[in-house]
Amino acid sequence: MGITQSLHRWAQQAPDREAVVEGESRTTFLELRERVARLGGALRGLGVEPGDRVAILALNSTRYLECLNAVPWAGGVLNPVNIRWTPVEIAYTLGDSRTEVLFVDDAFTGAVPVLRSRLAFTLTVVHIGDGPTPEGMYRYEDLLAGAEPTPDADRGGSDLAGVFYTGGTTGFPKGVMLSHDNLLASAMGGLVATAAFRIVPNARVLHAAPLFHIAGYGVSLMTSIVGIPQVILPFFDAERVAALVQEQRVTEIFLAPTMLQMVLDHPRFATYDLSSLRLLTYGASPITATLLDRVLKALPGTSLVQAYGQTELSPLATLLMPQDHLDADPARLRSAGRPCFHADVRVVGPDEGELGRGEVGEIVSRGDHVMLGYWNRPDESEQVLRGGWMHTGDLGFMDTDGYLTVVDRLKDMIVTGGENVFSAEVENAVGTHPDVEACAVIGLPDATWGERVHAVVVLHAGRDVGADEIRAHAKTLIAGYKAPRSVEFVEKLPLTAAGKVRKSVLRERKGER
Amino acid sequence: MGITQSLHRWAQQAPDREAVVEGESRTTFLELRERVARLGGALRGLGVEPGDRVAILALNSTRYLECLNAVPWAGGVLNPVNIRWTPVEIAYTLGDSRTEVLFVDDAFTGAVPVLRSRLAFTLTVVHIGDGPTPEGMYRYEDLLAGAEPTPDADRGGSDLAGVFYTGGTTGFPKGVMLSHDNLLASAMGGLVATAAFRIVPNARVLHAAPLFHIAGYGVSLMTSIVGIPQVILPFFDAERVAALVQEQRVTEIFLAPTMLQMVLDHPRFATYDLSSLRLLTYGASPITATLLDRVLKALPGTSLVQAYGQTELSPLATLLMPQDHLDADPARLRSAGRPCFHADVRVVGPDEGELGRGEVGEIVSRGDHVMLGYWNRPDESEQVLRGGWMHTGDLGFMDTDGYLTVVDRLKDMIVTGGENVFSAEVENAVGTHPDVEACAVIGLPDATWGERVHAVVVLHAGRDVGADEIRAHAKTLIAGYKAPRSVEFVEKLPLTAAGKVRKSVLRERKGER
Repeated sequence: MGITQSLHRWAQQAPDREAVVEGESRTTFLELRERVARLGGALRGLGVEPGDRVAILALNSTRYLECLNAVPWAGGVLNPVNIRWTPVEIAYTLGDSRTEVLFVDDAFTGAVPVLRSRLAFTLTVVHIGDGPTPEGMYRYEDLLAGAEPTPDADRGGSDLAGVFYTGGTTGFPKGVMLSHDNLLASAMGGLVATAAFRIVPNARVLHAAPLFHIAGYGVSLMTSIVGIPQVILPFFDAERVAALVQEQRVTEIFLAPTMLQMVLDHPRFATYDLSSLRLLTYGASPITATLLDRVLKALPGTSLVQAYGQTELSPLATLLMPQDHLDADPARLRSAGRPCFHADVRVVGPDEGELGRGEVGEIVSRGDHVMLGYWNRPDESEQVLRGGWMHTGDLGFMDTDGYLTVVDRLKDMIVTGGENVFSAEVENAVGTHPDVEACAVIGLPDATWGERVHAVVVLHAGRDVGADEIRAHAKTLIAGYKAPRSVEFVEKLPLTAAGKVRKSVLRERKGER
Repeated sequence: MGITQSLHRWAQQAPDREAVVEGESRTTFLELRERVARLGGALRGLGVEPGDRVAILALNSTRYLECLNAVPWAGGVLNPVNIRWTPVEIAYTLGDSRTEVLFVDDAFTGAVPVLRSRLAFTLTVVHIGDGPTPEGMYRYEDLLAGAEPTPDADRGGSDLAGVFYTGGTTGFPKGVMLSHDNLLASAMGGLVATAAFRIVPNARVLHAAPLFHIAGYGVSLMTSIVGIPQVILPFFDAERVAALVQEQRVTEIFLAPTMLQMVLDHPRFATYDLSSLRLLTYGASPITATLLDRVLKALPGTSLVQAYGQTELSPLATLLMPQDHLDADPARLRSAGRPCFHADVRVVGPDEGELGRGEVGEIVSRGDHVMLGYWNRPDESEQVLRGGWMHTGDLGFMDTDGYLTVVDRLKDMIVTGGENVFSAEVENAVGTHPDVEACAVIGLPDATWGERVHAVVVLHAGRDVGADEIRAHAKTLIAGYKAPRSVEFVEKLPLTAAGKVRKSVLRERKGER
């Protein structure tokens, strides 16, 4: 059993149902299966062998969904690229995983020369955009037209399905290896809990969050399993979300709380009819009581579900269910809900022993959803998977009814606008500025972004640089959202005896714990 | 991930919720987990090692459910015994699978001496009844009281979870080996489709069908995954079903159509309030339009779901959903519904190629729910699992919307009162009568039992025996429901060129195809 099974199933059971809706375009399940089989043939023709990695660098589109199916169909391994990363970062992930085939759309063709210049192997590029195909790339529709449909390679079980890169604690992204079983375990566990809210008459899901992200991909996988048509939004736009929900009578959507707030804040929000919405799932962070209150008032017919997990958990571990949002117990609202069936979740102390209810420790999880490991990083994999449990790096506690509350993230991680930023990566970037002697990066609370990236910098003696220059320099190396939004200059950093920066002291100075 | 996971989960999330209700007795999830851990310790103390088979021969009870959890908890393999079999048949299955430990309740202690006399090894017997414990058996509560709780052996994945014996085509039952993954794949696939009807406020399932049967066990596994309290009925009784639904406000029940008919036919049916019932699943055969009509009128608030599968499929393959029952398309009502996500289902011809829609061929299925094989029968296993597909032996066709209709069962199989009877087994039994020269057994339509077992017998020249004696003889060897209900005597049987009985001719003579 593999991730392409839903395509076989719905082509068999509902061949004429709309599988994908994008603008004026409609693709039925039968058409989707046929195009995927043909694209699978094209990939084989390009030399993709079972287990070979294939990357996608694109905005959401019907073709993105076709690629997500055709790569495993051909026997390949998905490598969905974070579109917010710089070409330097992307080149690193392609090189790290030796991904030799790349799908790219019009928005990202410009990155290809940089990628090619930094890779030690030849990158085969397929252009999935509607614009003119740049030289040195294959045109998607030409490839499809010239290819024979190939039978499904029938990859499944513990076969590698994807390498999902996530911000790396060592300053470089790490490739999370997920098998077909991993992804399906999370999807089925999530579906059992939420099917009642998803399988509704005339169900339609809107993809407003990016499909490259494990959350967006996970929603896509879950809804494809139950045969729900997927409405495509190329990228998040608050008004387009509201407009598409109204136009397509969308019943389900996934949004980060930041996105949700932007939709509600939009000046024309009240002019749209969002009454079709039955399920709104959100993740990355809990919802504030204020935001919840606004949602319950603005969308009275919509059930809310919070999902907690991480890429390493494929990604789902716990769910805060609709009823929990209505019970108005503030402690529960701050929690991440309770473990799904597929995810054994515990809170453990430094000795790996399970802690009592209410005691804060590291959140660990075990089950078929736990990643195979990090690509080419056996030591780090062994470390986080020690004892058969995925050590999330999140600190939290569980109450007597199994509700899990995350009290702190992996010590140094910053979540800004729903994206994970590892401070070490930012510190590495800032540290390359010739005038910088030392740097520590922390997250500070931010009304818009949840947290913002804040850099504490020590300059070399006699140098004088402004915050803008530090920020601009960082942006040449890392994505804009990772670059510090604020910079403070200090004489020296507080250090531990072992010479490590005491970030807790930096946070305390800013009024943070 | 294994079949004990639901126990861990609900003891964590709802420790005080009722897990089992039986008469006046209540067992919470926390109590259940503690008793199971203790019983697991007792089993280890009795010498049960990982992979060892442990049988249960009992009516439904709280203790039955405890055993179903404690055996895998201790690392053992379940062997739930068909309570309708004769001690001779049961002894065969225990011997075949070398099952050295047996749980037995008051109803079946009488069979133990026969079992012991026929087994080549020592049978350790644990008495789970409330009556006095016969000599040579352990008393259940004493064992529990004297045992230390043991940690879960954490069996899961492709580890063997159970050997489920099913009537054998060669005249002896075959042990269907199911792994943890097999059972969970079927359960999760079924739950994704039906969760909306199962996870309802104050949900409670009533076990009226026997827990030894894969259908009853499957329902128990599904409902335990979503934490629904299980109400126990020791054995099917039409009025007790109605009374318990009323008394316990039961929301879900599984019944074979024959059982359902008996409930509706009961003279006091109308005096009971069954309005709490949200879901009625049935299996083993389609529902007749007449019966459906009665159900829809008698239980207007109840959704109907038909399940199709077999032990070898753990057991679920397709579901006919509530809406299909309301659409009143008679062709769909005769169908078995559509494949669940976990079950790739096709109809193939003799060359194993997939047939067109509407064409009749053998129903095959592929996926994580397909058994590991038959215990100690590598050749038969290889034969039915050829090409990676489970060959169900059922003939059927699929329509253009993926609805599967079973037009004939494994050529010679008879389904009577929801139980499978393989004609070869009956023929073997009848054939041992000294006056019988040849015998062929077919199923004939029967208003009460669906089908009845009919024997066509050729006597040795000059002998004269009546139908009653044939029937009585058979009952000394096989269960009563397997013995022929009608017997006809003929001069000779119609044979093929290869010397096989042409059963189609026998059926035609009786007005059957």
